Amino acid sequence: MSLRERVTALVESRRFERFIIAVIVLNAIGLGLETWPEAMARFGGTIVALDRLALAIFVVELALKLFAWRANFFRNGWNLFDLAIVSVALIPASQQFAVLRALRVLRALRLVSAVPSMRRVIVGLFSAIPSIGTVIVMLLLLFYISAVMATKLFGAAFPEWFGTIGASLYSLFQIMTLESWSMGIVRPVMEEFPLAWAFFVPFILITSFIVLNLFIGVIVNAMSEATDKEAHSEREEILHQLHLLREDVSALRSHRAKAAEKPD
Amino acid sequence: MSLRERVTALVESRRFERFIIAVIVLNAIGLGLETWPEAMARFGGTIVALDRLALAIFVVELALKLFAWRANFFRNGWNLFDLAIVSVALIPASQQFAVLRALRVLRALRLVSAVPSMRRVIVGLFSAIPSIGTVIVMLLLLFYISAVMATKLFGAAFPEWFGTIGASLYSLFQIMTLESWSMGIVRPVMEEFPLAWAFFVPFILITSFIVLNLFIGVIVNAMSEATDKEAHSEREEILHQLHLLREDVSALRSHRAKAAEKPD
Amino acid sequence: MSLRERVTALVESRRFERFIIAVIVLNAIGLGLETWPEAMARFGGTIVALDRLALAIFVVELALKLFAWRANFFRNGWNLFDLAIVSVALIPASQQFAVLRALRVLRALRLVSAVPSMRRVIVGLFSAIPSIGTVIVMLLLLFYISAVMATKLFGAAFPEWFGTIGASLYSLFQIMTLESWSMGIVRPVMEEFPLAWAFFVPFILITSFIVLNLFIGVIVNAMSEATDKEAHSEREEILHQLHLLREDVSALRSHRAKAAEKPD
Amino acid sequence: MSLRERVTALVESRRFERFIIAVIVLNAIGLGLETWPEAMARFGGTIVALDRLALAIFVVELALKLFAWRANFFRNGWNLFDLAIVSVALIPASQQFAVLRALRVLRALRLVSAVPSMRRVIVGLFSAIPSIGTVIVMLLLLFYISAVMATKLFGAAFPEWFGTIGASLYSLFQIMTLESWSMGIVRPVMEEFPLAWAFFVPFILITSFIVLNLFIGVIVNAMSEATDKEAHSEREEILHQLHLLREDVSALRSHRAKAAEKPD
Repeated sequence: MSLRERVTALVESRRFERFIIAVIVLNAIGLGLETWPEAMARFGGTIVALDRLALAIFVVELALKLFAWRANFFRNGWNLFDLAIVSVALIPASQQFAVLRALRVLRALRLVSAVPSMRRVIVGLFSAIPSIGTVIVMLLLLFYISAVMATKLFGAAFPEWFGTIGASLYSLFQIMTLESWSMGIVRPVMEEFPLAWAFFVPFILITSFIVLNLFIGVIVNAMSEATDKEAHSEREEILHQLHLLREDVSALRSHRAKAAEKPD
Repeated sequence: MSLRERVTALVESRRFERFIIAVIVLNAIGLGLETWPEAMARFGGTIVALDRLALAIFVVELALKLFAWRANFFRNGWNLFDLAIVSVALIPASQQFAVLRALRVLRALRLVSAVPSMRRVIVGLFSAIPSIGTVIVMLLLLFYISAVMATKLFGAAFPEWFGTIGASLYSLFQIMTLESWSMGIVRPVMEEFPLAWAFFVPFILITSFIVLNLFIGVIVNAMSEATDKEAHSEREEILHQLHLLREDVSALRSHRAKAAEKPD
Repeated sequence: MSLRERVTALVESRRFERFIIAVIVLNAIGLGLETWPEAMARFGGTIVALDRLALAIFVVELALKLFAWRANFFRNGWNLFDLAIVSVALIPASQQFAVLRALRVLRALRLVSAVPSMRRVIVGLFSAIPSIGTVIVMLLLLFYISAVMATKLFGAAFPEWFGTIGASLYSLFQIMTLESWSMGIVRPVMEEFPLAWAFFVPFILITSFIVLNLFIGVIVNAMSEATDKEAHSEREEILHQLHLLREDVSALRSHRAKAAEKPD
Repeated sequence: MSLRERVTALVESRRFERFIIAVIVLNAIGLGLETWPEAMARFGGTIVALDRLALAIFVVELALKLFAWRANFFRNGWNLFDLAIVSVALIPASQQFAVLRALRVLRALRLVSAVPSMRRVIVGLFSAIPSIGTVIVMLLLLFYISAVMATKLFGAAFPEWFGTIGASLYSLFQIMTLESWSMGIVRPVMEEFPLAWAFFVPFILITSFIVLNLFIGVIVNAMSEATDKEAHSEREEILHQLHLLREDVSALRSHRAKAAEKPD
């Protein structure tokens, strides 16, 4: 057995998978402890050291997988996901990039790629997207059109909410979630533009209807997959039985025909 | 090939459709840029010129289609939709009609009529309406009755929210979306009318129940269409096979009967 | 034809139904106009007179139905509904009972009992209730327990929200609808009782889960009724065809058996 | 009949069950009255005495069940539930533990364990959990990661909302329920960190999508159980009939074969 074969066997073993899962969980707990000042004051050095150790283990893990699978490593989306997450932590985060340091906790997301049942859920979630792709594009189109209109109509009077297309998109997203849409946004706007409801109420109705359709698309997708398989295989079995039966009957006929011929 | 046939072939070609879609998308981006002061300061002339060019292209497109299809042009709802949207842009918008200028961005909605998959989604959305029509009428009836009652009961004390039927309808719509219904509206009203909850809580429960039923109507509609077709055709096939089988058996019987007669 | 038969034919005719629907709609519009001060100032007398006329028509209608159907009148829930709504309007509303006058607009609800398709929707809504009855009782039980606990725990410190069981029930209903639950209620309560989230967050999760189950109960009910009927009748037809086929085959057998006996 | 047999017959009788349900309901009403100062001022002694009596009845009930069923008592989760709830009331609640006294009203929850139809609903609710377990774990993982990130990014500037992981978890739960997420939390945060929307908007979208999937998991589970049983048994019947039919036909064939042999 060559070195590469042994490494392949190692990285594909259940034991290795479980070890990596354990490191991910411990690392996630450690990253959480970093936000607790008392813990950092007393065990700060240990926590940071363990974080570096976990990172080192992840680097070695990915190096071993890369060595074992070579180009195939890059054909699996989950490996690319792991690589991206670990790479973020390796960027030399100078003290001012607090965001990059906060992103390190994304490493806990590796749990999703490491646990098979979670991987299946994510694949399931994404499988619903094609069936709702057009509806999502229409929702984006509606948002864009509404944001341009809101900016032109209300941007001058309410620059904080509708001053730019970006601000309008954010405000319209807030309105779509129904958060403070009336008391917070539309009633103040209506004091300036009394007919503003004629813009916002249809916007709410249409986005609700589109979101409802997104929703139904996902449900129908999940439902037809889940409930129809058994029924389909049973109907297949019925058709198969019918086919066998027709063969029996036709055998009977040809038999009968031959028997009828014989006496002649 | 006459001129009209050549124009028909042109406006029905894939290439023409794609060209129009490209113009719609570029025009939508241009209309968005108009809300960005820096862009307007530097490229304002170009943006406005391109907008006029896009409008000219749309006018020519509709003229060609009208020439090609004649009266049939008006039999397709999507053509009427395009015509209405392009006409809005042709109204000589004097500077004070900011609304009409804002409506020009509705031209991006032509994307829906130009892309077949979006057209299908819209047709699908509308196909759900007949099955929920009665429920919508009942919701409107409930809103009307509640608005009249709210205006009579609370209009004098809270003119901003319930002063007219229009104000009441808007406030009840806000309450139906659950936005600030209690802290914003009902608690203040209850300080004046302690039993106001007996009006608003049932209103919320009943509208929620009706909206839930609208929702279910749409789901059941989508579901029965989506999941039942395959099962239905399989059951049809089973019935067809059973029919063939009965014919086989009855052929066997008549055969047998003839054979039984012959010896006599 | 006796008088009673002629009255029965009248009240059961399509024309009478349509006339009553027209009166209901016109009366509803009139009741709406009463909230519009300008309309009342100019046509107040006419509006009030037409309202009295509509009421008189309803009284005559119910009297005719009572005469035609006698005791059967009371066996139909819709008649009792109509009777209750019309009776409310006949109570001599002294000026101080503004509520009773506001209730008159409930007469527009008679549209529901007069239009057959709406009656069917309402019957459909109610048919879902038995299947969700137990879940509703559990929701009420949860509300009662939570209200008693909230009153005992937070009543002394926050009398406005949790001072009595009634106030607690209202506040918990508001929290269930998620309206201002955190910024408006729970964050202020947590300043006094830091562990209050341990009461409210589970309350929200459990009520959401129960409401989700109510919801699913109604969906499953509607779905199984709507989508299964056709499939069921097709499967019934398959079974029927199979039955006929078995009879054919057994006829063939007994035929064959007889034929086999004959030669002996 | 031994004493134990007689006690078993008693505690398993319908009459005993009904008596306990009555005591639970009366006790629940009594516990509610305790929050009503006027009632306590006039009948305080009676209410407290009746509460003690109810508690005594529950203790005797559980003692009898324990005597009747012995170790089997502990094998039924509902008995453990009853035992836990009654035990809470027996803890000598010193005056300062207002929480323990408030928990006494949980005794009304015994209604759920006493009424069979409610027990079934609860078992049904729990039966949905395995199918959504992984999705729940993923939601918790997302909350943990987001809370750590929010604490690191916004904790210093907004200690009240994101100062600790606990505070962040609570704020993120509030944001997931969409309560005041924008006007209350994200807009103030965006004044300090203009790009905060890039954290919160995806958080809302992803949690909504995961909750939608939880939801669909429960619906699909309930639906496939409810609607497929009848169809499944009908298809089973079709297959059974087909099987009988094939036996008939094969009997016919062997019969025919024998008949064909005989003449030789």
